[in-house]
Amino acid sequence: MSRIAVLIGEQFEDVEYTEPAAKFREKGHQLIHVGLEKGKDVSGKKKGTRVHIDESVADTSPADFDALFIPGGHSPDNLRAHDEAVSFAGSFIDSGKPVFAICHAPQILITAQKLKNRKVTGWKSIIQDIKNSGAEFVDKEVVVDGNLVSSRQPSDIPAFVKAALEKLQ
Amino acid sequence: MSRIAVLIGEQFEDVEYTEPAAKFREKGHQLIHVGLEKGKDVSGKKKGTRVHIDESVADTSPADFDALFIPGGHSPDNLRAHDEAVSFAGSFIDSGKPVFAICHAPQILITAQKLKNRKVTGWKSIIQDIKNSGAEFVDKEVVVDGNLVSSRQPSDIPAFVKAALEKLQ
Repeated sequence: MSRIAVLIGEQFEDVEYTEPAAKFREKGHQLIHVGLEKGKDVSGKKKGTRVHIDESVADTSPADFDALFIPGGHSPDNLRAHDEAVSFAGSFIDSGKPVFAICHAPQILITAQKLKNRKVTGWKSIIQDIKNSGAEFVDKEVVVDGNLVSSRQPSDIPAFVKAALEKLQ
Repeated sequence: MSRIAVLIGEQFEDVEYTEPAAKFREKGHQLIHVGLEKGKDVSGKKKGTRVHIDESVADTSPADFDALFIPGGHSPDNLRAHDEAVSFAGSFIDSGKPVFAICHAPQILITAQKLKNRKVTGWKSIIQDIKNSGAEFVDKEVVVDGNLVSSRQPSDIPAFVKAALEKLQ
């Protein structure tokens, strides 16, 4: 059983959070929602799903968790305007612990400058950003490169979850 | 008097459209709203401002206009998932005609691969993407480099409009 940090902010893509979250819990893993402000709720961009922020990103570190899950939507772009969120995600990549990134999630790893020479996939609109970051963009439903598991879009969720679960104890 | 193409899609940043648009019209310039689908409306992300799309981006070209204005918000990221919008913005840069880009607008120029060796500014969250595209990021309220005029955020609008108007006949 793993403690998974979910790095999440306003306007996340609802199903990219809800579906993997349900599967992770079903397998007995614990989710801790990490965001800009502890105690606040953030909302999904299409269905208005509410998520309660359990921990402030500034007050926690990868040492407190076994893995990181970053849903997509506008949440990654909102979060990466804040240095403490960028630093948290970057430290996770450095820690070697599993990082699960879907859709726009690689944006925060680009800002953290952690994608150089990594194989990564992501949502169509950010393909050029992924390439420019020094990563190799791979157009597949899920790409696993070391501790980094990435997917493109909601239809990739089953493959994304399967690959993520294989990284967890 | 110039014909200005406004490249705009869903979830634009309302004031980054409404305030420059009002000033451009005040000076006698004409705005033609170019988007993914002619005849549809698109909405602003904070205030729900409605904008009617006059021309489909696939059916028009920089030859039809004197300048291009790209408001920010989520609109540029939505548009750049569509090749015809990316190609339209890229052709405008190549045409040498003025291009006005605010906030997230440089995202579409990154996807068009047109920012290499240009001096550019933009919203905080996309700074690393701007740098990775080969541009020089400049942290100023307005940056003018040849035909490209860029600004960071809503508070830069007065400086953005002033520099843009200087580029128009």
